[in-house]
Amino acid sequence: MKTKNKIREAVLTDRKTITVRFSEVDAMQVVWHGEYIRYFEDGRESFGKHYDGLKYMDIFNSGFLAPMVELNCQYKQSLTFGEEAIIETRYIRTAAAKIMFDYTIYRASDNTVAATGSSVQVFVNAQTRELELNNPPFYADWQKRWIKD
Amino acid sequence: MKTKNKIREAVLTDRKTITVRFSEVDAMQVVWHGEYIRYFEDGRESFGKHYDGLKYMDIFNSGFLAPMVELNCQYKQSLTFGEEAIIETRYIRTAAAKIMFDYTIYRASDNTVAATGSSVQVFVNAQTRELELNNPPFYADWQKRWIKD
Amino acid sequence: MKTKNKIREAVLTDRKTITVRFSEVDAMQVVWHGEYIRYFEDGRESFGKHYDGLKYMDIFNSGFLAPMVELNCQYKQSLTFGEEAIIETRYIRTAAAKIMFDYTIYRASDNTVAATGSSVQVFVNAQTRELELNNPPFYADWQKRWIKD
Amino acid sequence: MKTKNKIREAVLTDRKTITVRFSEVDAMQVVWHGEYIRYFEDGRESFGKHYDGLKYMDIFNSGFLAPMVELNCQYKQSLTFGEEAIIETRYIRTAAAKIMFDYTIYRASDNTVAATGSSVQVFVNAQTRELELNNPPFYADWQKRWIKD
Repeated sequence: MKTKNKIREAVLTDRKTITVRFSEVDAMQVVWHGEYIRYFEDGRESFGKHYDGLKYMDIFNSGFLAPMVELNCQYKQSLTFGEEAIIETRYIRTAAAKIMFDYTIYRASDNTVAATGSSVQVFVNAQTRELELNNPPFYADWQKRWIKD
Repeated sequence: MKTKNKIREAVLTDRKTITVRFSEVDAMQVVWHGEYIRYFEDGRESFGKHYDGLKYMDIFNSGFLAPMVELNCQYKQSLTFGEEAIIETRYIRTAAAKIMFDYTIYRASDNTVAATGSSVQVFVNAQTRELELNNPPFYADWQKRWIKD
Repeated sequence: MKTKNKIREAVLTDRKTITVRFSEVDAMQVVWHGEYIRYFEDGRESFGKHYDGLKYMDIFNSGFLAPMVELNCQYKQSLTFGEEAIIETRYIRTAAAKIMFDYTIYRASDNTVAATGSSVQVFVNAQTRELELNNPPFYADWQKRWIKD
Repeated sequence: MKTKNKIREAVLTDRKTITVRFSEVDAMQVVWHGEYIRYFEDGRESFGKHYDGLKYMDIFNSGFLAPMVELNCQYKQSLTFGEEAIIETRYIRTAAAKIMFDYTIYRASDNTVAATGSSVQVFVNAQTRELELNNPPFYADWQKRWIKD
């Protein structure tokens, strides 16, 4: 499931530009490694807006939550305060009842890769918090709408 | 309501020691000013444990929430990574249906003041989110238990 | 110095729109009160870009840091995940060697006030970290450039 | 490098107890997944204090920084506000000029696993920020002192 050596084929891709905040930079004067997890979340939310129907609130309003079960990040180059970065969020197809994304964070000024990553989310019923083993209807619909074979 | 020039009389005081985390330090290599809000929250929670019955969950389990309505902080000396600090949380008495605290953050090594602050919380019904104009019964009980005239 | 009851006259104003992130929302499902400190910082940075020459890096590149010495926030209405908010940052004139701002955070959808606040920063030499009692030349220049009598 | 299915043999282990803060809990009323990265950092710092000489400041005072190059986290069970959790940090031996840790976060009340994870750090010269291909002397010494064959 690692994305270290090759780029997995993605069916849908979103790109969002952010600017590094002062509060995200650590004592080494680069973005603290934990902040990339927030950038990935920004990327997912931007993706869900772009490919309408997969934002956090869309999932919640359909009666589900999509908790994170796996998160990976590889750090390549540091980013500093005030720099612009591009969060590329790529949807990875899977037959399982999961949402899988790969990420690449680019420094906007020269397009070098600052970090890569991947995440896996599952579905739980928002009321019972029980795991959904099959794709919720709203998600099957979303896939039908956006993913052409 | 400012605590700049004099110390308001506090009826109950708690002191809690914390260690500055790497992720709390900014590019100037001192604790980012926003982190003190978290230290105040740590102080309130430690206070509510010490003077049993005023922890976040005690309030919630009594059917209330206590949202912040005012927060002030004065920064005096910076704290750096790895330093121990003491959060002093002082309960300020008021006839209003409010929780008022004053804070002093001390550098543990030499007892100099790093920051002072104050906060005011009100009560809202956890269900309706409506403001409570009178002290909730659990809070009146808590005051009776801990504050001797 | 409190901004509770009246609006202080501001000579320069910036407005920036942000969207509430999932990670900024707390267990009460509203923006955690400490996140507003980050919004104020976003406001200052946007202000310093708008009125060119007062960004964090402008100050640093002039040989200074501008640490926070006072911060106040009054919470009026809560903001929830996904909502757009407007950070209004108003520069307050002072003869002292300080940077003073007032803030208002508006809910974008209906223009109600979510929070108000104020901050005071001083100047320290970036090398020695000693307090500057007079306005640094770059700041006097910035004032001359942007503030017309 | 994944720790999903088996526990890698660790030569040194530290355990630290923490209490979940209110500001770490998200709108689903469980610890936000990004906060585990901070818990891992707390674990590394506690480890470096336990096995003296590997704290952040020890590394820095030896002329090095140890930036993160890889981070993985698997989420098993959620933690809620006020719960105690145990951060287990296990040092993984490697011939490379790297610091490798595995982590397990346990719910303290019943010892169930909340999350597992792993991290890889490299060494860079604190001045030049250039990558160190060989173990820095202080690190070779630390290994000699703490790891018995």
